[in-house]
Amino acid sequence: MKKEFVVIGLGRFGGSLVKELIDQGADVLAIDKFSERVDDYASIATQAVIADTTDDNVLKSLGLQNFEHVIVAIGEDIQSSILTTIMLKEIGVKQITVKAQNDYHEKVLKKIGADHVIHPERDMARRLATSIMSNTILDFIELSDEHSIAEIRANEILAGHTLGDLDVRAKYGLNIVAIKRDDQIIVSPQAQEEIKSDDLLILIGGDADITRFEKKALH
Amino acid sequence: MKKEFVVIGLGRFGGSLVKELIDQGADVLAIDKFSERVDDYASIATQAVIADTTDDNVLKSLGLQNFEHVIVAIGEDIQSSILTTIMLKEIGVKQITVKAQNDYHEKVLKKIGADHVIHPERDMARRLATSIMSNTILDFIELSDEHSIAEIRANEILAGHTLGDLDVRAKYGLNIVAIKRDDQIIVSPQAQEEIKSDDLLILIGGDADITRFEKKALH
Ligand SMILES: Nc1ncnc2c1ncn2[C@@H]1O[C@H](COP(=O)(O)OP(=O)(O)OP(=O)(O)O)[C@@H](O)[C@H]1O
Ligand SMILES: Nc1ncnc2c1ncn2[C@@H]1O[C@H](COP(=O)(O)OP(=O)(O)OP(=O)(O)O)[C@@H](O)[C@H]1O
Ligand SMILES: [Ca+2]
Ligand SMILES: [Ca+2]
Ligand SMILES: [Ca+2]
Ligand SMILES: [Ca+2]
Repeated sequence: MKKEFVVIGLGRFGGSLVKELIDQGADVLAIDKFSERVDDYASIATQAVIADTTDDNVLKSLGLQNFEHVIVAIGEDIQSSILTTIMLKEIGVKQITVKAQNDYHEKVLKKIGADHVIHPERDMARRLATSIMSNTILDFIELSDEHSIAEIRANEILAGHTLGDLDVRAKYGLNIVAIKRDDQIIVSPQAQEEIKSDDLLILIGGDADITRFEKKALH
Repeated sequence: MKKEFVVIGLGRFGGSLVKELIDQGADVLAIDKFSERVDDYASIATQAVIADTTDDNVLKSLGLQNFEHVIVAIGEDIQSSILTTIMLKEIGVKQITVKAQNDYHEKVLKKIGADHVIHPERDMARRLATSIMSNTILDFIELSDEHSIAEIRANEILAGHTLGDLDVRAKYGLNIVAIKRDDQIIVSPQAQEEIKSDDLLILIGGDADITRFEKKALH
């Protein structure tokens, strides 16, 4: 059985979400109150409908209670986002994910029963800030406040050295868990592995240690 | 010396970026053409200025050419975003990062010399799609089209088994590089490590193998 989702609000975030879910094999009902937005997704979504989701009769007639998961991607119109979430909860939708505009909005959404509240712009801003502050950290997963997995670009200074030479475990308490070289992924690279200048090093460890490695080893 | 950045456009993305850069120790000049937006960041940014950045005299009088990196986070007004980027290039800013609204916008931005073009809403939509499609993948780094690092929530079925029992390397070609348990991070966990039901498993491997592991081992 295919997974079935509803995405309400077809701005950049909601619209991209429709595309990605479809790409990953889901069925998606896409909803927006503006016909032009709906037109843009008519040939992409499983179904695309013009509707104002603040009206509970509309939600019921669309049968939204029968879907696994509804994502509310209405952004600027906070009132619509809140009303829609209340209505979805009332008709018994099991999983509701809502995009929040700010902290106040998030607080209200949680109070009225949103299961997940997301902040796409804030989260990507955090990723970008980390990547431009360091110049070499390209992507990361925050494991805790103090630990991350970071994707770091090697450079001429590291090139030609082996992982054994570098010994990041002893010197920085870090672990290089993989190297990405061109299209190849070297998982759990060995001590004799020689770094090339364009390698992406994937490492895990304390944030402070990652920063220390970046500052000392790459400069 | 502190790193110095300029952020133009204080919507959710640009505004969050100002906060994050400041949090990470940078100096940030924050600019928006609307005074209310600028007011919101007056006490957060190093400096906050009301200005329309499509005017090159304004850019010069602000001395933008002296900053390391300018980020243009103007969204909906594509024309302003493009004009601003052209002006920044003209006055000789070295690093220009621009938020794109769509693929057409990106194409133009690259042509006129933007160094990086970003799509925060699209990128977060991709992350969310992956995480809701799988239910258990909470975050990931895409290493290539076919390989990722994924953060997967363990469950009751895995609980009590050791990593040796699981043997994901032999069965799925995957490597568990870390386990997050409460606030603790166990890097390179050993075969005798016993999984708890709420553990976050951080694993690296092929996308298809990760999906196979998720489907078979977690159900
Ligand atoms: N009551 C409603 N019912 C259905 N759709 C709605 C409703 N209110 C707003 N929308 C739609 O939600 C979509 C997203 O809203 P908006 O553009 O304000 O969000 P945004 O956060 O700026 O979007 P993004 O950053 O993802 O581009 C719009 O296309 C809008 O028409
Ligand atoms: N020419 C300009 N000069 C300075 N600031 C501008 C200019 N044009 C637009 N802005 C500002 O850029 C900010 C972001 O624009 P907008 O809200 O359209 O983007 P957005 O992509 O929807 O934002 P987000 O999704 O990050 O909330 C706005 O606060 C707007 O006032
Ligand atoms: Ca961190
Ligand atoms: Ca907007
Ligand atoms: Ca947005
Ligand atoms: Ca992938």
